[in-house]
Amino acid sequence: MTLDPRFNQDIDRTGTGSSKWDKMEQLFGVSPAEGGLAMWTADSDYATAPCVIDALCRAAEFGVFGYGYDDAAYKQAITWWMAERHGWEIEPDWILTTQGLGHALATAIDLWSPADAPVVIFSPVYHEFAAKIRKVGRTPLEIPLRRDGDRYEIDFDAAEAALTGREKVMLWCSPQNPSGRIWTAEELRAVAAFAEAHDLILISDEIHHDLIYPGHRFVPAHVAAPEASDRLVVLTAASKTFNIAGQRTGNVIIPGARLRSEMKSRLAATDYQPGTLGVAMVTAAYSPEGAEWVDAQMQHLVGNCAAFETAVNAIPGVRALPLEATYLAWVDFSGTGMSDSEISERVRKSARIAPTPGPGFGRGGEGFLRFNLATTRARVEEAGRRLREAFSDLQ
Amino acid sequence: MTLDPRFNQDIDRTGTGSSKWDKMEQLFGVSPAEGGLAMWTADSDYATAPCVIDALCRAAEFGVFGYGYDDAAYKQAITWWMAERHGWEIEPDWILTTQGLGHALATAIDLWSPADAPVVIFSPVYHEFAAKIRKVGRTPLEIPLRRDGDRYEIDFDAAEAALTGREKVMLWCSPQNPSGRIWTAEELRAVAAFAEAHDLILISDEIHHDLIYPGHRFVPAHVAAPEASDRLVVLTAASKTFNIAGQRTGNVIIPGARLRSEMKSRLAATDYQPGTLGVAMVTAAYSPEGAEWVDAQMQHLVGNCAAFETAVNAIPGVRALPLEATYLAWVDFSGTGMSDSEISERVRKSARIAPTPGPGFGRGGEGFLRFNLATTRARVEEAGRRLREAFSDLQ
Ligand SMILES: Cc1ncc(COP(=O)(O)O)c(C=O)c1O
Ligand SMILES: Cc1ncc(COP(=O)(O)O)c(C=O)c1O
Repeated sequence: MTLDPRFNQDIDRTGTGSSKWDKMEQLFGVSPAEGGLAMWTADSDYATAPCVIDALCRAAEFGVFGYGYDDAAYKQAITWWMAERHGWEIEPDWILTTQGLGHALATAIDLWSPADAPVVIFSPVYHEFAAKIRKVGRTPLEIPLRRDGDRYEIDFDAAEAALTGREKVMLWCSPQNPSGRIWTAEELRAVAAFAEAHDLILISDEIHHDLIYPGHRFVPAHVAAPEASDRLVVLTAASKTFNIAGQRTGNVIIPGARLRSEMKSRLAATDYQPGTLGVAMVTAAYSPEGAEWVDAQMQHLVGNCAAFETAVNAIPGVRALPLEATYLAWVDFSGTGMSDSEISERVRKSARIAPTPGPGFGRGGEGFLRFNLATTRARVEEAGRRLREAFSDLQ
Repeated sequence: MTLDPRFNQDIDRTGTGSSKWDKMEQLFGVSPAEGGLAMWTADSDYATAPCVIDALCRAAEFGVFGYGYDDAAYKQAITWWMAERHGWEIEPDWILTTQGLGHALATAIDLWSPADAPVVIFSPVYHEFAAKIRKVGRTPLEIPLRRDGDRYEIDFDAAEAALTGREKVMLWCSPQNPSGRIWTAEELRAVAAFAEAHDLILISDEIHHDLIYPGHRFVPAHVAAPEASDRLVVLTAASKTFNIAGQRTGNVIIPGARLRSEMKSRLAATDYQPGTLGVAMVTAAYSPEGAEWVDAQMQHLVGNCAAFETAVNAIPGVRALPLEATYLAWVDFSGTGMSDSEISERVRKSARIAPTPGPGFGRGGEGFLRFNLATTRARVEEAGRRLREAFSDLQ
C-alpha cells in the first residue's frame, strides 16, 4: 500500500512551541532527543489541508490584521459543513464562536451549573471534562459506562441511582473520547430522554465528529433527538479534524433561543472576540477541498489503526478497542496483570513512548493507555514494534 | 516630503471581514462604496511589519497548528521590548497572556471589583472602559479630567470627593485615549499615591505606549511608581503598535505575586489558552526589525497629524488637541456652537467620514469627535478637505 505523502512527511515538531513534543520530557520523562514518541495530547503531527494553509498565506500577504468578527462567510461555511458532512441543518445564527472548546466547556459549566450542583459525566471520558469542572469550582458526578466486551454502554440505572437531584448540566462526548465509540441514534434519544427526565442541560461535545472510520456513521445529537432542542448545547470545532487546535477557535451551536442568548451574554461579558486568522482558517477548512482532505486523512488513519492494532493486540493481555471514530486508540493493558505504574513505566522507559495515562479519564480508565495515532505510518509502526519489544517477556 | 510606501498603499479593506470598514455603513450610515472613510475603530489601514508577516508565512508553510503555549521565546521578546523601548525591566514570569485587552479588562474587573463596588475611571476615556465595566455587571464611577487649554489634568480633589469608599479597582489609560496625552512620572506617582490612599488596584492600560511622537517620552507606571508594585496591573499588547488586534493577543504584566496568582487562576478557570499564531506574531514583532518599523510608522503618523491638524484647525471653532501619543486625533468642535448631533450629521452626511462620537468617552466628551489617523496620507488629506468643505459655511 502506498503511503499518502500528505500524512507521512517526517516533520520534526520539537522546538516549535508544540506542547505535545516540547513538554513531553518534563511531564513524562520521555525525551524527544532520544527518539521518544509523543502520543498523548490530541493534535496531529502532519500539516493541515492545503486550502487552510493557502487561506493563511493569503491573510499573511494581505498583512492587515485589524479588528474582525465571525462574519457571514464563516458562519455559512460551518452551516454548509454540518449539512453536507453530517446531514445536520442549522441556522447560521445558532453559532457562537469561542476560544476553543476548553473555553466553551468552562464557560458553559460556570454559566449553567449552580455552585452546589454536581456536573454529570460518563466515565471513562475526555480527562478535561472533570478537570474543567474542577477548574470552575464545581464537582464532577462520575457515572461509569458499562463495558460490554469491546463496547461501552450507558448504564441508565446506575445514572438514575447516582443523581442527587441538584444536577443541572451533563457533559456528553460524542463520538466518545477515549473509547472511539459512536453513539447510535437510539442511544442518543435515550440520553436526551434522560436529560429531559432530570431537567438537565445536555452539552454534547462533538469535536471528533469528522474523524469517522469507513463503515460507520456519526449521528449529531440534534439530528437524533430534535425534541431536545431547548436543552441542547453542541460543541464543535475544526481543530481536531484539521489540526488547527493551536489557533483556539471553537463553535457552540445552540438551537434553543434561551440558552443561546444566555451563552451570548456570558461571552460578551468576558469580552471574548473571535481571532480573525482562526475565522479565516475555519472558513477555508469547511469547504469541498477541506472535505476531500479529511477523507484522505481517514484513509491514512485506517492504515495507522490497522498497523497499531495488529502490533499491540499481539501482546498477550493487551487489547486495543476497535475504533469507530477519533485517532485515539484506547488500549486495555489490564490482561497483563500489571499495575498502572508498571505499565506506564515500561511504556515510557522501555518503549520511550508518552501516551495519555488511562486513570486520568476517570473510573474505568485503570489499566488503560490512550495512544494518539495522528502521525506518520512510520511512527505508528515504530511505536508498535517498541511496545511489543517492551512487553516481549509476556510472549 | 516623500511618502513611505509601507504606510501609503491604497489597500481596500472592504469585504475582508474588517469591522471598521464592513460595519461602518450599518453603524454610521457612511458607505464605503460611496467613498466613505472609516476613521473610528482603533486599527490601522496599512500592513504590519514585514518581520511579522514573515513569521506568519513561516508558520503557514510549516502547516502544523497543534497545541502550543506562551513559550519562553515569546516572553523573552516581550521582556526585551519593555527594557529596550521603555526602560522597563520585567521578569518573564510576570507576563500573563490574554485574549486581547478587552478580555483582560473584563476579567480584571470581574475578579477584583466586588459586585457592589463602583469602578473608578477618569473621563473622557476609552469608551470601552465604561462598556466593559457594565458588561461584567458593575458600575463605572466617572471622574472628569480637568481640561486646561490643550491639556487634561487629573482633578484629585474631585476624585476624593467622588469616592464612596467601596471602590477596589481603578482603570487608568496611559498614554491617554482619546486625548493622546502622556502622563508625566510625577503625575503617575500622584496616581499611584491616590490608589494607595484608597487601597485601589491600579490597572494601567498602556496599549498605546509605543505610539509616541518625537520629543515626547512615555513613562511606564511601574517605572514611575515602583512603590505601587503590589497593587499594579499593567496591560500591554503589540496589537495597536503592529496592527494585529484581530489576532486577539494581549499581555497582563503583574509585578506583584498575589495579584498575579489571582489572575493566573482566573484565566485557568475560564480555560483561556494563547493562540499559537498570535504568540508567533508578537514574538516576531518585538524585535529590532519590529522596532525599526515602528519608528518608520511614527514618521508617517507625524505627517498625518500635521496634515490633519492643519486642515481641521483652519475651521473656525474647531480644534484638534496636539497629540503626544496614539494615532487618534481628539477634535473639539464645541467652538462651532453646534450640538453633537449636528456635528455628527455634517461629518457623516456631508464629509462622508465615520469617526468615533465623543460623548461615548464619557463626561467631557461632548462636542468632540475622535478621528483615527492610522491610514494613508492621501486618506487623511482627503478627510481634511472634506471636513473643511462640510463646515465651509463657518468660514
Ligand atoms: C472531547 C474533546 N473536547 C474538547 C477538546 C479540546 O478542545 P479545544 O482544543 O478546542 O479546547 C478535546 C481535545 O482533545 C476533546 O477530545
Ligand atoms: C486604551 C485601550 N485599551 C484596550 C484597547 C483594546 O484592546 P484589545 O483589542 O486588545 O481588546 C484599546 C483599543 O482601542 C484601547 O484604546
